[in-house]
Amino acid sequence: MSEPTQTIEGWYAYHDFRTVDWASWKSMSPEMRQQRIESLQAYSRSQREIEGREDGSYGVYLIAGHKADMLIVHFRKTMEELIACKTEFEKLEIADELIPAYSYVSIVELSSYLSKPGSDPKDDPRLKGRLEPKLSTQPKHVCFYPMNKRRNADDNWYMLDKEKRIELMTSHGMIGRSYAGRVYQIITGSIGFDDWEWGVTLYAQDPLEFKKLIYEMRFDEVSARYAEFGPFYVGHTVDEGELAAWLNV
Amino acid sequence: MSEPTQTIEGWYAYHDFRTVDWASWKSMSPEMRQQRIESLQAYSRSQREIEGREDGSYGVYLIAGHKADMLIVHFRKTMEELIACKTEFEKLEIADELIPAYSYVSIVELSSYLSKPGSDPKDDPRLKGRLEPKLSTQPKHVCFYPMNKRRNADDNWYMLDKEKRIELMTSHGMIGRSYAGRVYQIITGSIGFDDWEWGVTLYAQDPLEFKKLIYEMRFDEVSARYAEFGPFYVGHTVDEGELAAWLNV
Amino acid sequence: MSEPTQTIEGWYAYHDFRTVDWASWKSMSPEMRQQRIESLQAYSRSQREIEGREDGSYGVYLIAGHKADMLIVHFRKTMEELIACKTEFEKLEIADELIPAYSYVSIVELSSYLSKPGSDPKDDPRLKGRLEPKLSTQPKHVCFYPMNKRRNADDNWYMLDKEKRIELMTSHGMIGRSYAGRVYQIITGSIGFDDWEWGVTLYAQDPLEFKKLIYEMRFDEVSARYAEFGPFYVGHTVDEGELAAWLNV
Amino acid sequence: MSEPTQTIEGWYAYHDFRTVDWASWKSMSPEMRQQRIESLQAYSRSQREIEGREDGSYGVYLIAGHKADMLIVHFRKTMEELIACKTEFEKLEIADELIPAYSYVSIVELSSYLSKPGSDPKDDPRLKGRLEPKLSTQPKHVCFYPMNKRRNADDNWYMLDKEKRIELMTSHGMIGRSYAGRVYQIITGSIGFDDWEWGVTLYAQDPLEFKKLIYEMRFDEVSARYAEFGPFYVGHTVDEGELAAWLNV
Amino acid sequence: MSEPTQTIEGWYAYHDFRTVDWASWKSMSPEMRQQRIESLQAYSRSQREIEGREDGSYGVYLIAGHKADMLIVHFRKTMEELIACKTEFEKLEIADELIPAYSYVSIVELSSYLSKPGSDPKDDPRLKGRLEPKLSTQPKHVCFYPMNKRRNADDNWYMLDKEKRIELMTSHGMIGRSYAGRVYQIITGSIGFDDWEWGVTLYAQDPLEFKKLIYEMRFDEVSARYAEFGPFYVGHTVDEGELAAWLNV
Repeated sequence: MSEPTQTIEGWYAYHDFRTVDWASWKSMSPEMRQQRIESLQAYSRSQREIEGREDGSYGVYLIAGHKADMLIVHFRKTMEELIACKTEFEKLEIADELIPAYSYVSIVELSSYLSKPGSDPKDDPRLKGRLEPKLSTQPKHVCFYPMNKRRNADDNWYMLDKEKRIELMTSHGMIGRSYAGRVYQIITGSIGFDDWEWGVTLYAQDPLEFKKLIYEMRFDEVSARYAEFGPFYVGHTVDEGELAAWLNV
Repeated sequence: MSEPTQTIEGWYAYHDFRTVDWASWKSMSPEMRQQRIESLQAYSRSQREIEGREDGSYGVYLIAGHKADMLIVHFRKTMEELIACKTEFEKLEIADELIPAYSYVSIVELSSYLSKPGSDPKDDPRLKGRLEPKLSTQPKHVCFYPMNKRRNADDNWYMLDKEKRIELMTSHGMIGRSYAGRVYQIITGSIGFDDWEWGVTLYAQDPLEFKKLIYEMRFDEVSARYAEFGPFYVGHTVDEGELAAWLNV
Repeated sequence: MSEPTQTIEGWYAYHDFRTVDWASWKSMSPEMRQQRIESLQAYSRSQREIEGREDGSYGVYLIAGHKADMLIVHFRKTMEELIACKTEFEKLEIADELIPAYSYVSIVELSSYLSKPGSDPKDDPRLKGRLEPKLSTQPKHVCFYPMNKRRNADDNWYMLDKEKRIELMTSHGMIGRSYAGRVYQIITGSIGFDDWEWGVTLYAQDPLEFKKLIYEMRFDEVSARYAEFGPFYVGHTVDEGELAAWLNV
Repeated sequence: MSEPTQTIEGWYAYHDFRTVDWASWKSMSPEMRQQRIESLQAYSRSQREIEGREDGSYGVYLIAGHKADMLIVHFRKTMEELIACKTEFEKLEIADELIPAYSYVSIVELSSYLSKPGSDPKDDPRLKGRLEPKLSTQPKHVCFYPMNKRRNADDNWYMLDKEKRIELMTSHGMIGRSYAGRVYQIITGSIGFDDWEWGVTLYAQDPLEFKKLIYEMRFDEVSARYAEFGPFYVGHTVDEGELAAWLNV
Repeated sequence: MSEPTQTIEGWYAYHDFRTVDWASWKSMSPEMRQQRIESLQAYSRSQREIEGREDGSYGVYLIAGHKADMLIVHFRKTMEELIACKTEFEKLEIADELIPAYSYVSIVELSSYLSKPGSDPKDDPRLKGRLEPKLSTQPKHVCFYPMNKRRNADDNWYMLDKEKRIELMTSHGMIGRSYAGRVYQIITGSIGFDDWEWGVTLYAQDPLEFKKLIYEMRFDEVSARYAEFGPFYVGHTVDEGELAAWLNV
């Protein structure tokens, strides 16, 4: 048996993708729509306050393509709170027109591939910032996808010895580092929580950086031989005013 | 042909995952909702009594993510009772708003990999406790996933000889044992009953233990080379009061 | 090219799996429900009469899990009759609440692996009984699953020579024979008729026998290297009285 | 690069599979049903006239199993006409109850594997008959399935050289020829048009011939090593009277 | 690690596939239908004007088969505009009957396999024309499919060295060039944006050219060993008058 990678965990994460039932939305009276928009705005504003209390973070995004129209991201201290976030949102009246399309349950994860052994993450402000990421300060565009490491006969990540894995991840990390300042990456682990092993959430001012980074990484052995990718989602952040404008018919 | 593993079986198990039709639920009158909540509570309380009669067990959980909102677990003595449980639940009025999302039909299974040959499980209180697990005494969080053992050209579990399988399962069990007292595991067999070969139901006070345990196991040859995993679900137990609060709009 | 296996065929088979739309069912008036139950009972009773005329057979079962609630099996002399059975059922009023969930179109098949070459199946009452199986005399529980033989690079059933296939199937049949009297098996071929190559319908008094038999077979080379399995369904037979009780709200 | 196979093409083909919304159909007034049946009959009769004008062909079939209840096949001279056929059908009132279940877009194809090089298909009445097949003269039962040729590491059809492909297809064709007069086969190519590479439409008086033929072919190297199969559909032709009887509640 | 291919990007692309809810459409009053048709025509006309401003391009097509009835293609300068295009369309009343069926989010991409290194694409009118393609001047028929390059153990595109990839793509490009003037091809990259790595949009006067070209390419090593294909869609362009005629019941 290979020696497992040690991981350190931060906030729990809930990525909640929704499609709008526009037909139902348009059939409502303008007053009803306005009321529901305002209550969504109030909800969203109150969610954003969590960051100030350092109890979690929150973000809301419009998404491209037919797979989803909207993404809400919750970072929280416990799994219980993630479930409560889902329930609270569903009880909003406007949730009737915001149909669940996809979601992801995970927890922020740093692996020993990238961190120095022996250090206590709690004492390191840089690590704390990565374990408990503030979504309000991220650049405009977001990209999300889940992924696995392969366990095929010839390409089995989990049968590699730890040194080989560290060597491969180090080379992989070099590509990421060359995008420092342009792409911000949050890795969340989801083994035992959701259907893939990891979620990847990327932020960038220019969404073309997502394509450039992921394409470049695909030629790296870690991706080329060992990665399996789930669905990809891309979009951009909106504030409460933009949210209202988006829903305004 | 490899010599098959001998198994001993306990209670039949029905994992019943549901999503809430919140739009329909919110559109009801408060009186109707209250009536349906109370009848769900009464149902749930009566189901819990089965444990006292030693005829089975019962648990109800809230689930994270969009794949399901709720899980009801029934352990019963016969397959017929599992079917009757499903029918009885569907006849509740509130079942109209609790839409089937996933389910799993299986039976508690202990394999000779883990038990000593020659022993009669009926006489062993420890084995009896594992074959007829009481869900009321489990820790707060639950994790469920179905799985197969691979039958690929290079990684074919069922073509290994029995000694090799025992050796691999022993090493695999060692990881599990290192989580003793923190993670409680119920293995249910489902060959001939459902679409995967086994169901795995885990309980822990801290849900992070699920991720740590399953991740560590993934580096073990049994998982790394021979396991195929289905969807993962995670959540926490609720009592009748929490169930009512959850449904309260 | 390998020499194909010779097969002899019996009755055509239609496995019709349904889920109940319980919300719609419960919303009906008791009188309407009663009327529909009685018409389903009348339909079912008349279908059973076909066995006496030796023109086919019929069975109705409750199914475990969320994938289906009910299974109706028709054995008939022609494909045209199978299609007519489907149409006739759909024209019943109660079919509005019995939503198609899965189905299987096939024909009873005996292969030369298991029968002696040169014998005429029509003259052999034992073979005739297997080609035209009477469902009314089967034990209580039923198990159904479709399957393929693999055509992978290393494990390609159809590239084996006939002698090897006969040798493997003989060993496979030995396991089945050790369950004689406890599990009754009907193999139906579906190449050209449905999405898998065969359907397997098993009957047993104790449903645990299904799991024991299929698990034991999985270690046999025919299953271990060459079998691909579709969805599994398990349930038990009901008579017209039990059918009414099941639907009684 | 292997030398590609040369193909000659005939009529475009649209296979349109539908399921009946029986609940909606039964809820209509008898007058409305009668009116819709008559307009479907009129549509169907007028479609059949295309064969006399040699501008295409048309067939309508009842299908076994829950995947579809009905199949309409259109053969036309252009892709535009195939799209117009779909639109025209959807505008019929009865199309509201005939829900699209599956479809296939392709074009009749003969490959140089089977035809003599150098011949001009237009001048050969036998070839013209195969490129522009008249559905009205086919035997009663129909079978349809789409398929691919594999491109796996060890079994890659498109990496074989042309001589090997011709050798394999010749042997494959021999099996087909042994069913001459009993099974009539139409191959349609769909690369660039639909999700599989070919559609196979078979006709036979006795549907058991479909199973016998496809099963025998599966032991041939072309199928055993190189074929991937999509869903299978089987059914039988109906005339306008039978269509009305089928829909009569 | 292999040296990644350098790419240059042009306009963002949104392929929006829709199916018509004909039952709902037919149930409307003729006046309401007429109003919605006119507003769709007005929308479409205004979208086409973008080409004159050189800010993007637009096309609308009818699609064959049941997977989609209609395709709208938007080319725009930013990802944000793609999302705004989707929202704007959904706010049209007629969008209630034009149900999302599939979509693709990507960006026009030229790779260094095909372009000369060192050249600045902005200065080259031929390259600019390919990076910012005008859909109004394309031939009548359209074909779209997404695709990946394989990362299998034996056939892993991303593990080939750059020289090998260039050699293979050059040979692949030769086939495309032999269709010059008959088939026009737009490659869009979608890594990080959608579920496949590339989208391929082809235009031709005669749709048979799509089949001939893609079939011929399939024997080329790049496709034969390294390509994975998603769903295929084929159709033809319509102007505002044809759009109205198509929707006219």
